[in-house]
Amino acid sequence: MIYFDNAATTRPDAESVSAAQRYLNEDFFNPSALYREGFEVHRALNDARRRILACIAPQGFELIFTGSGTEADNQVIFSAARRGNFVTTEGEHAAVYASAKELARRGMEVRFARLRADGSVDADDLLSKVDENTSLVSVIHVNNETGAVNDVAGLAAAVKKKNRRTLFQSDGVQAFGKLSFVLPPAVDFYTISAHKIGGVRGVAALLRKKGVPLAPLLFGGGQENGLRSGTENTFAILQFAEIAEKRMRDLAAYRRQATRLNACLREQLDRSLFLPLSPENGSPFILSVSARGLRGEVLQHMANERGLLVGTGSACSSRNRYSRVILACGADEQTADGVLRLSFFGTEQEEDACRAAAILNACAAELREKTR
Amino acid sequence: MIYFDNAATTRPDAESVSAAQRYLNEDFFNPSALYREGFEVHRALNDARRRILACIAPQGFELIFTGSGTEADNQVIFSAARRGNFVTTEGEHAAVYASAKELARRGMEVRFARLRADGSVDADDLLSKVDENTSLVSVIHVNNETGAVNDVAGLAAAVKKKNRRTLFQSDGVQAFGKLSFVLPPAVDFYTISAHKIGGVRGVAALLRKKGVPLAPLLFGGGQENGLRSGTENTFAILQFAEIAEKRMRDLAAYRRQATRLNACLREQLDRSLFLPLSPENGSPFILSVSARGLRGEVLQHMANERGLLVGTGSACSSRNRYSRVILACGADEQTADGVLRLSFFGTEQEEDACRAAAILNACAAELREKTR
Repeated sequence: MIYFDNAATTRPDAESVSAAQRYLNEDFFNPSALYREGFEVHRALNDARRRILACIAPQGFELIFTGSGTEADNQVIFSAARRGNFVTTEGEHAAVYASAKELARRGMEVRFARLRADGSVDADDLLSKVDENTSLVSVIHVNNETGAVNDVAGLAAAVKKKNRRTLFQSDGVQAFGKLSFVLPPAVDFYTISAHKIGGVRGVAALLRKKGVPLAPLLFGGGQENGLRSGTENTFAILQFAEIAEKRMRDLAAYRRQATRLNACLREQLDRSLFLPLSPENGSPFILSVSARGLRGEVLQHMANERGLLVGTGSACSSRNRYSRVILACGADEQTADGVLRLSFFGTEQEEDACRAAAILNACAAELREKTR
Repeated sequence: MIYFDNAATTRPDAESVSAAQRYLNEDFFNPSALYREGFEVHRALNDARRRILACIAPQGFELIFTGSGTEADNQVIFSAARRGNFVTTEGEHAAVYASAKELARRGMEVRFARLRADGSVDADDLLSKVDENTSLVSVIHVNNETGAVNDVAGLAAAVKKKNRRTLFQSDGVQAFGKLSFVLPPAVDFYTISAHKIGGVRGVAALLRKKGVPLAPLLFGGGQENGLRSGTENTFAILQFAEIAEKRMRDLAAYRRQATRLNACLREQLDRSLFLPLSPENGSPFILSVSARGLRGEVLQHMANERGLLVGTGSACSSRNRYSRVILACGADEQTADGVLRLSFFGTEQEEDACRAAAILNACAAELREKTR
């Protein structure tokens, strides 16, 4: 089996699961408990916090553990976008997009910036929407459907230049552990998630610039400095720290391999059947293509039968026939209907990419033959 | 080491972790993915849902997986208590109590019913607070500090008799897998959690009476029928189903053993040093006592040195000197200051309870000698 759907979720990394396993077994204690064993788990938890911070924000930021990337995105939006208007893009992950729609339903003014053909935001359009009443701007870092990379540092600085009181959020779930990036001071909030880089599900983190106000979304025992209540998921958190460090340590190698896999597929996929949608300069971990005129879902099933697992746009929005993001890139319905997303962990072999290309070429050719 | 702090968290049950492990390793797929492997995980997820439902609500209820008991409680409160007034008790877990305080801060009228000396709610006071404008009533099922059991079925029916439009919520985190209970039709929402009964952290569930309106708290990919977005934590969910079934299957044995441990401690703790606060007819899994005139925290540390781990009131509220719940029971500050909470999994040996009693008696006697 070839698994090329790592943007949906990844196989948890066995080595880091083993390293953190003791927090599931012997050191299962509640970190709020006032006995030595509890303190020790609490110390490990804060150590994990520092270790992950060091991967992305050596200074100026705090880290709040949450239960998912969705939760982190929601917390920022429902905390920071309470007055004036909220500016975001047509290319956001559902965690931001559905929250924005909910705010609009509640009567808040929400402005969606246009996308360019590759899925990155049209920066001029975004900035033109920011005014003196904009409370929050949210721009995804790496588009989860096309892999297009937004210049978060530049956009955040430009937004602050227009309105220094506007807060800037970025969902970095498809960026963290995949591209080399240090949080710039103009970014106020940044979301990262464990399960997209070999971590287990049930943990993610919100990075917050020090001093920037943030309201809790979950009220209770006051964990995470009062900002996120609920017993801390220490096993998942420690495993997250392990895998984050491992990804950062070997980032160049993961990227190099993803670039190879990506190039191999671009080269070997039959251009008369498949149109690449992802930009050449995007994240090498995501390659979206369209078998225009064919149904992506049918191709996905055919490939599945031959041992290749790929996505069709975001797994989260798999209930809709067309991806809203692909349509927002300006694609027509025929193109949107044929989308397949291949996404890599960064350790797969090139021969897997070759085999995947051959399987997809064969499936598309057969399907075209049938539907002719 | 003797671990008597199971109301704070439990050691995950190894057998059910093993049984669910494949969803962490080979079957790690995103249940929203449209290939066979994704469907199979999705099927297992819905199977887990049915298995847990069967443990507590054979019919008339739906189950929504959440990331924690806190999240489930918060979702109900911020969804259902939006108009009129919200009636709850002085004996709630922080997940409900802090949410109620937040609602009050936002201008909602919140009414707290008084407790009886054992920590259960004063039913007359609760019902007197319910009127034609009450949107939600929330009553904890088993008090997490004293183990007192509230008659949730009776209270819910009485509330509905006063106002049939009032919704009734109960936090059942310390009840599920510990007492024999089937959700009665007058209850609209009920929270259960995995990590208090041998499950892993990062998963809990909200039971909702079919047809009762509920708003999402987390917006995004639309998982859990649109009610709780975020990639499903399938490993934790499957392990939750395993341990829930195991607890229900052997419930009588767990209860019998907890009753033995509880009785043994009640009998052997020196009555001149320790005053039991828990009612005789409460949950056998929780025994709170007060070493009146001594500091519970100091005793806890001394016991810790001798290999016994016990709580001092709720671990969640461990930052406050006095437990708000114990004070609400009518205890004076001296009593509240001396509180220790012993809580059982239900598989510990009686000799552990005897040893625990001996350790606590010795610690309290020494501390009394010192502070004389």
